Amino acid sequence: MENQRRRPWDEIHALLEGRRPVDEVEAILDSLDPADLLHAVFSLAPDDQRALLAMVKPERAASLVENLPDTHVADLIEEMSAHDAAIIIEEMSSDHRADVLGEMDAEDAEAIMAELDDEDASEIRDLISYPQDQAGGLMMTEFACYPMATTVRDAVDHLTGDAVDYQLLTVHYVYVVVKKKKLKGVIRLRDLVFANPDLTIGEIVKPALSVPPDATLDDLEDFFDEHDIAAVPVVDSRGNLLGIVRRRALLEELAERAEADHLKAAGIIGGDELRSMPVWLRSRRRLAWLSVNILLNIVAASVIAAYEDTLTAVIALAVFLPIVSDMSGCSGNQAVAVSMRELTLGAAVPKDVFRVWRKEVAVGLINGLALGVMLGIAAWAWKGNLILGLVVGSALAINTVVAVSVGGTVPLILRRLKLDPAVASGPLLTTVTDMCGFFLILSLASMVLPALI
Amino acid sequence: MENQRRRPWDEIHALLEGRRPVDEVEAILDSLDPADLLHAVFSLAPDDQRALLAMVKPERAASLVENLPDTHVADLIEEMSAHDAAIIIEEMSSDHRADVLGEMDAEDAEAIMAELDDEDASEIRDLISYPQDQAGGLMMTEFACYPMATTVRDAVDHLTGDAVDYQLLTVHYVYVVVKKKKLKGVIRLRDLVFANPDLTIGEIVKPALSVPPDATLDDLEDFFDEHDIAAVPVVDSRGNLLGIVRRRALLEELAERAEADHLKAAGIIGGDELRSMPVWLRSRRRLAWLSVNILLNIVAASVIAAYEDTLTAVIALAVFLPIVSDMSGCSGNQAVAVSMRELTLGAAVPKDVFRVWRKEVAVGLINGLALGVMLGIAAWAWKGNLILGLVVGSALAINTVVAVSVGGTVPLILRRLKLDPAVASGPLLTTVTDMCGFFLILSLASMVLPALI
Repeated sequence: MENQRRRPWDEIHALLEGRRPVDEVEAILDSLDPADLLHAVFSLAPDDQRALLAMVKPERAASLVENLPDTHVADLIEEMSAHDAAIIIEEMSSDHRADVLGEMDAEDAEAIMAELDDEDASEIRDLISYPQDQAGGLMMTEFACYPMATTVRDAVDHLTGDAVDYQLLTVHYVYVVVKKKKLKGVIRLRDLVFANPDLTIGEIVKPALSVPPDATLDDLEDFFDEHDIAAVPVVDSRGNLLGIVRRRALLEELAERAEADHLKAAGIIGGDELRSMPVWLRSRRRLAWLSVNILLNIVAASVIAAYEDTLTAVIALAVFLPIVSDMSGCSGNQAVAVSMRELTLGAAVPKDVFRVWRKEVAVGLINGLALGVMLGIAAWAWKGNLILGLVVGSALAINTVVAVSVGGTVPLILRRLKLDPAVASGPLLTTVTDMCGFFLILSLASMVLPALI
Repeated sequence: MENQRRRPWDEIHALLEGRRPVDEVEAILDSLDPADLLHAVFSLAPDDQRALLAMVKPERAASLVENLPDTHVADLIEEMSAHDAAIIIEEMSSDHRADVLGEMDAEDAEAIMAELDDEDASEIRDLISYPQDQAGGLMMTEFACYPMATTVRDAVDHLTGDAVDYQLLTVHYVYVVVKKKKLKGVIRLRDLVFANPDLTIGEIVKPALSVPPDATLDDLEDFFDEHDIAAVPVVDSRGNLLGIVRRRALLEELAERAEADHLKAAGIIGGDELRSMPVWLRSRRRLAWLSVNILLNIVAASVIAAYEDTLTAVIALAVFLPIVSDMSGCSGNQAVAVSMRELTLGAAVPKDVFRVWRKEVAVGLINGLALGVMLGIAAWAWKGNLILGLVVGSALAINTVVAVSVGGTVPLILRRLKLDPAVASGPLLTTVTDMCGFFLILSLASMVLPALI
């Protein structure tokens, strides 16, 4: 089993070293299980990934990179010659290639576009100009549109001819325009082929739903929730048809956004990290976030320094400081996760701060009590000192309420301030709860110090 | 603005209290922005959500709950009368209603199915029997299939008649069967309508790609990556056509899985938590995970208790214990997040443990050095003791390497052991890094104790 599984990787290494003829390479790649192939590609060093892309047919290269994250594809292609890069870019779908070029340095992107034909290049320039998280950035330009006066027969003939891109087959609408690009309406492909061939399409057109290019992901999500259609036309303020956004593109983008939020919450900022990336890049990105955190940690720990006398008197307290810090972080993170989820679902909006806080306090009181009792009993049992148990237990109980209050509300407040809750919620939460937790345990202990010694 | 935004919620409250006629309720709901409506529904207490669902038309109720998480819909509908619930369930699509009934207690689900007509009920029973994360659980049973001998004309007539469900319109394939259900092949709707109407569909059928009912989400992802089609038929081992899985259903399920993993990693286990759920339920679910964590924390902190003498001698060390614990947790979580991401992408598989470990050590050495120097300087500056700086700095540096090693590899190891890496990686990571960090800082300090006092 182990030996069999190692094969694709070995095959590809042999290919890269041997420089075999393209046909043979293609045949071997065809024979591999797609998941194994993808895994093998990911396992290669970036230079080998580039060598492989340059070696295979452009269609294969394009379909391989369709499964990689955009930022990673941009990194790969940026380092290839503009000519080699352009050949692969040409084979990608319009929405995907704009995303990839959008991730590159402007200079590299321009060099590649100079190699493309003018029509492709100007189309990409248009698409790149839209933010990636809006309808304009998600749209594709492969769609069928005909002027009002086209007959049904001509439209059907054209659609079934060879000139039409395979991409159209996945979206079953034909758009009707006047003056070349003003959207007049839509016809379902099915209705078109059942219509009298002598009619003009202007006679059977239906009004079209549309979205503006600056519709956000949330707008699009609402749109597709309401309307059971596979794609929506994007229309500018003058009524011109710019492209279409497929439901599938939206679902993929939403998944990517959720994934990015997840990574950011864990401290992977600035795009996807893959272990095939250079060490210095991975290290630098991670360190940027860690450096901020260590400073916040030092600030929080300074609370402890202010109570050295109490600690010296009751050294057992030192055992409980990290526990209170950790457990409050855990409780707070649960509240952060629920708030992030509710923001995504639309179940909470920034103005719900007070409602969320009330709901969190209820849970925090119960869980704080439970955790406080557990820790208190552990402390009591360990040192045989009931007062020590009461001190650490109540510190944890109170701090749990603080943690869920902060954790639940901070994502909403950050969203209201137009800051990214995925990045900032965690560090803010741990700093506040650490400071508060250390203060609670040490100040409570100071108050009853004689009973603890 | 604030006043305007509060309206939908107030409207709905007024509706619930006033028991206005259905028409009026529907008109008001129609006038609301869909996002506001969804938010308002989420903001209601569960009983009010149920009252609203029972009050509106069944189609509206079905479309409202389509936007809520399955587990939540199950909770809502379970508490309604079987009759009211059945009316809503009837309006939902086959894949969605099976998911919702699958989340209920068997008894409640049976009571609802008893209210449905026999055909619907037996279809749901079939669908529920498949695990939700396999093709069988994702498939829908609304598809068009005809026997080989059907003429093209009859098939087209039937399809364009009123009998066909609107759901079909979103998937453009017709399946050809023999003996009522054995899949023989597929015809694109477009090819069907362009074919000679006098041919039988058996004469124009093409071989169909298919997946077995136990195909996993990963299998389906590979399939749809490779094939640019909108839906794939699900066929059992005897060749019978059971249903179809739409690409859209797969994308939605993948997004849900990612979301569930995200919540689990933050300690929200056992399904989605919404703040409209009862306090005791939210508290109990969160506490289950917190209780395990506090035990692990107490175990980890017992390392500190073993070094009470060292701590008493150099009380300043107590300030650095939570910092080392926290920072190692941060570094380790970054590695966990990248491993989880690579597992999802297919960029890493469980047997990559050693490769991942090597890649993490490289990053860990650089970041550990950087963080160690920062913390070491802070300690030196604070107490004016270079040795203290060296002790805490090197403890953090070494523990960072430990943390990324554990964080990077544990998800792969858990996956290999068929355990859920999303749930267990975090607690395992923090326990190991805490113990190791406390041990490093305190044992290093013990070794050079005279220089620290």
